[in-house]
Amino acid sequence: MLLGKMMHQPLTVGSLIDHAAHYHAETEIVSALTEGGFERSTWARVGENARRIGSALQGRGMEPGDRIGTLAWNNRRHLELYFGVPGMGMVCHTLNPRLAPEQLAYIVTHATDRMLFIERTFVPMIASIRDQLTTLRGVVMLGPRDEAAAAELPGLLFYEDLLAEGDPAAPWAEIEETAPSALCYTSGTTGNPKGVLYSHRSTLLHALCVNNRDGLAIGAADSLMPVVPMFHVNAWGTPYAAAAVGARLVLPGPRLDGDSLARLIIDESVTIAAGVPTIWLGLLNALDGMDEKPVSLKRTIVGGSALPPSMRAAFRDRYGVELIHAWGMTETSPLGTLNAPLAKHAALSHAEQDQIGNGQGRPPFGVQLRVVDADGTVLPDDGVTEGQLQIRGHWIVDHYFGHEKTALTWDGWFDTGDISTIDPDGYMVIRDRAKDIIKSGGEWISTVDLENIAVAHPKVANAAAIAARHPKWDERPVICAQKRPQSDLTEEELLAFYDGKVPRWQRPDRVIFVETLPLGATGKVVKASLREMYGDVLWDEAMAELEAEKG
Amino acid sequence: MLLGKMMHQPLTVGSLIDHAAHYHAETEIVSALTEGGFERSTWARVGENARRIGSALQGRGMEPGDRIGTLAWNNRRHLELYFGVPGMGMVCHTLNPRLAPEQLAYIVTHATDRMLFIERTFVPMIASIRDQLTTLRGVVMLGPRDEAAAAELPGLLFYEDLLAEGDPAAPWAEIEETAPSALCYTSGTTGNPKGVLYSHRSTLLHALCVNNRDGLAIGAADSLMPVVPMFHVNAWGTPYAAAAVGARLVLPGPRLDGDSLARLIIDESVTIAAGVPTIWLGLLNALDGMDEKPVSLKRTIVGGSALPPSMRAAFRDRYGVELIHAWGMTETSPLGTLNAPLAKHAALSHAEQDQIGNGQGRPPFGVQLRVVDADGTVLPDDGVTEGQLQIRGHWIVDHYFGHEKTALTWDGWFDTGDISTIDPDGYMVIRDRAKDIIKSGGEWISTVDLENIAVAHPKVANAAAIAARHPKWDERPVICAQKRPQSDLTEEELLAFYDGKVPRWQRPDRVIFVETLPLGATGKVVKASLREMYGDVLWDEAMAELEAEKG
Ligand SMILES: Nc1ncnc2c1ncn2[C@@H]1O[C@H](COP(=O)(O)OP(=O)(O)OP(=O)(O)O)[C@@H](O)[C@H]1O
Ligand SMILES: Nc1ncnc2c1ncn2[C@@H]1O[C@H](COP(=O)(O)OP(=O)(O)OP(=O)(O)O)[C@@H](O)[C@H]1O
Ligand SMILES: [Mg+2]
Ligand SMILES: [Mg+2]
Repeated sequence: MLLGKMMHQPLTVGSLIDHAAHYHAETEIVSALTEGGFERSTWARVGENARRIGSALQGRGMEPGDRIGTLAWNNRRHLELYFGVPGMGMVCHTLNPRLAPEQLAYIVTHATDRMLFIERTFVPMIASIRDQLTTLRGVVMLGPRDEAAAAELPGLLFYEDLLAEGDPAAPWAEIEETAPSALCYTSGTTGNPKGVLYSHRSTLLHALCVNNRDGLAIGAADSLMPVVPMFHVNAWGTPYAAAAVGARLVLPGPRLDGDSLARLIIDESVTIAAGVPTIWLGLLNALDGMDEKPVSLKRTIVGGSALPPSMRAAFRDRYGVELIHAWGMTETSPLGTLNAPLAKHAALSHAEQDQIGNGQGRPPFGVQLRVVDADGTVLPDDGVTEGQLQIRGHWIVDHYFGHEKTALTWDGWFDTGDISTIDPDGYMVIRDRAKDIIKSGGEWISTVDLENIAVAHPKVANAAAIAARHPKWDERPVICAQKRPQSDLTEEELLAFYDGKVPRWQRPDRVIFVETLPLGATGKVVKASLREMYGDVLWDEAMAELEAEKG
Repeated sequence: MLLGKMMHQPLTVGSLIDHAAHYHAETEIVSALTEGGFERSTWARVGENARRIGSALQGRGMEPGDRIGTLAWNNRRHLELYFGVPGMGMVCHTLNPRLAPEQLAYIVTHATDRMLFIERTFVPMIASIRDQLTTLRGVVMLGPRDEAAAAELPGLLFYEDLLAEGDPAAPWAEIEETAPSALCYTSGTTGNPKGVLYSHRSTLLHALCVNNRDGLAIGAADSLMPVVPMFHVNAWGTPYAAAAVGARLVLPGPRLDGDSLARLIIDESVTIAAGVPTIWLGLLNALDGMDEKPVSLKRTIVGGSALPPSMRAAFRDRYGVELIHAWGMTETSPLGTLNAPLAKHAALSHAEQDQIGNGQGRPPFGVQLRVVDADGTVLPDDGVTEGQLQIRGHWIVDHYFGHEKTALTWDGWFDTGDISTIDPDGYMVIRDRAKDIIKSGGEWISTVDLENIAVAHPKVANAAAIAARHPKWDERPVICAQKRPQSDLTEEELLAFYDGKVPRWQRPDRVIFVETLPLGATGKVVKASLREMYGDVLWDEAMAELEAEKG
């Protein structure tokens, strides 16, 4: 036996907030409130409230491993749940408020959520589906007692009451670092949402890598604004990364329009921001219309969808802001690649740097990438050979929540559903998508759902939904429909048929009538050829609109 | 059972070099050669050689857990051993060439080293003690076959021959992340050196934190020069941190004088450097005498001894280089604190920033600090209350190598032997030292050894060695001696008595004859009062000398 060793401490979310609360006690947590105005807290108070809310949940019978749902914006209370729930050994299950109520009900039930924390805004919606949420022992409104809200949803609890019940000095649960800490569902590649269950260990290792110089490089002196919602892959892990270094947080609440964000960046001296391209387009438009400049802003991290080609130059040339392109998925925590430069890139022209910067970047230590062909044969990392992108690493999913079957290939890699090239330095570029799904402004739209609705129309014989390129939303849905013989269906008529069946923003932008849909050998519609034919139908028009918006 | 989980990969040194060799294959590793000139390798070739040397050791019967000694400068071959030895499950035991041969023999034997890798320079010295090194199965010279050397040390093996024996594609050993990876002895607080056995996990977590924005913030685009020797706490973990991000390394070899370093920084465009204060004093002197400026250099990390107060300003004002003060120990891997600023410090004047920057800094996520009194009662972090500094965390020692007894307090903290204050933001300042030892130019001198020699002199009744402050060496030894009645001992006589008994640099700078040594209640010499009386005897003179050197 080798005698001699180093201390062992588990890597836990509780230890993260303890670090921030102890060594960065007075550093501010600023939250934009739904009702307007701001609220200012500190890491010390967030830490205290995290212990309070976690212990209050224990007091109400929640046990280690129990899932606790949240339906909330980016704000201080949500942050307290991020730490308090896993700190006490439970699982913080973030829910996307943009989902249709039935989808929410499906996910809450599938996850067996025991308690649900919601913003005031969502009280009526949750009241309308409360009887379907059978696993819940309670719903908690994120705010002080509110009689009007209580009347709308009988039995409603209130966050401030729970805080008062809790113990500000309660010890964190003693857990192993492989215990689950958070749960996030992704629409993924098929119709049914699947849950990714992060562990304390994966969360911590991810946070440490996010803070590396070639990651988001967040430091204690930074003011970080996660615009990416806290219900999207834990806001890309930024709240955890911020706690690890005690950065100041500026949480933007529900208003993510360009003007609101521009004001927030300037007024609160934000130094680093993170979000999807659509958000930054809005911000650019807003900034272009203002006299003030966002002088504090050094860096924005952009991911979730491909970067519009001109965006890096726009941020750099007009505002001196470095834009860093990143790629990831719910299944990858999400940091899969990040576009940090190598030494040799310093000598390149801006145009050449942008060429590299517009790609999705390279993997940090902790993850590995490969591209494979349809048979699973590994392809060369030569920058030109396209293949299915597969990933593996410390913070990559292994099993989806509640699935007995592995989420991985036989040899232990996760297939992303993206089609990519990887160059010899590891720089990955997404070239196409194998998964049949549409990503609009960072949010998924299911092609299956849109197709099911179309074919339910009595005048439609067959239909396929495809992603059309869009300068603002990255992609928008377009329906290719084959009418029943002799039917007189119009575009307006079919579009109107979607009303009430999907959220407004999921309604297709266009219907294209075709004689017949191209079918492959197995009888499936060949989406690739439809995308090739109609993938650009929205582009010119949308560009013109965007220009009009600006000017 | 909770279904769902994230991938598990162990945190291993092998995975670090794999990352660098794969994603930063062509990034350079530059080594200054002992014989002059340079050698250029790459992460890919270092990775390949690491597999070769590790598998060659396996082929020669080395087994998991076996200790492999190194007596080597900062260069490419030493770097290959850093990865190849632990990659194959063995332990890389770095030895300090400045130790006396008997001390080396003690440590090699205590560690049960099986194989020893040495520079050409050390062949005669090792030959002279070879018969004492009974645990060794072989000695390997770090270079190609050399008949002259082989004649000096019968049975000598050669590194390049072992490389040729090895397999460049050998798989890394399958090990748990808690397995040991490296061993380093420290003179510590008592006479006998003690070994700290780092694990793969502690090494990796330390590397990730070193790379954080508020750590050394090393990125792929950096050229890092670790001047701190690779036989000092793994060069502060910088080779591992560099591999994690694929930074370029500039390894300075044996010549660490100011002129050599200045040339290296300028010619090789070093961006970040790390070393002890004495080194930077030499560098400052050299730079001040040159026309060229080290324009590439952004940051130097200084630790191992207290920062001379004017050094930060000198680097900033004359060369635009940020100097970051850090504190640590062999027992702490070594990153314990690092002086990264908080947001609120940006508004301070340079003088005020220097005031904070001259302190030892604050702990990163992963370690915690406290100060306690003599009874172990925890003292307030108020910035004024001095106490014994204790530390705990992911990369802090738990048991010394070969010690059955814990190295920790009853409640699990490691006592550093430093006397410190900690302010409410966690900024720690070393105020004094509880351990009775002298640190000269980053190297320890044992007071016990010096005292034993003094009292062995027939004309000495009693003697105490104390650390006197020194602007260049931080501390130098001074002997306070009580003569035997009626003896005619002179300072020169006593100093000459040290010749041949300690290395030249350990010889005391001064002897002060006292009537009686102050004794405490338990009969021990009260060093604190001697330091108070004589701690500054060298200062003015040494300052004058330094000025003369410069001008
Ligand atoms: N930088 C990017 N460029 C192009 N596509 C991207 C990029 N980032 C993510 N994607 C797409 O999004 C997919 C991941 O979506 P998923 O919803 O799981 O991630 P996410 O991080 O939750 O995104 P969001 O927060 O926007 O919902 C990827 O497989 C890829 O198709
Ligand atoms: N920044 C510093 N300021 C003052 N003292 C320091 C500093 N860094 C280290 N020390 C002293 O050195 C001790 C640790 O010495 P040790 O030899 O274990 O560390 P080390 O990292 O190996 O240093 P070195 O590489 O110089 O030998 C500390 O307990 C402290 O007394
Ligand atoms: Mg998503
Ligand atoms: Mg040392």
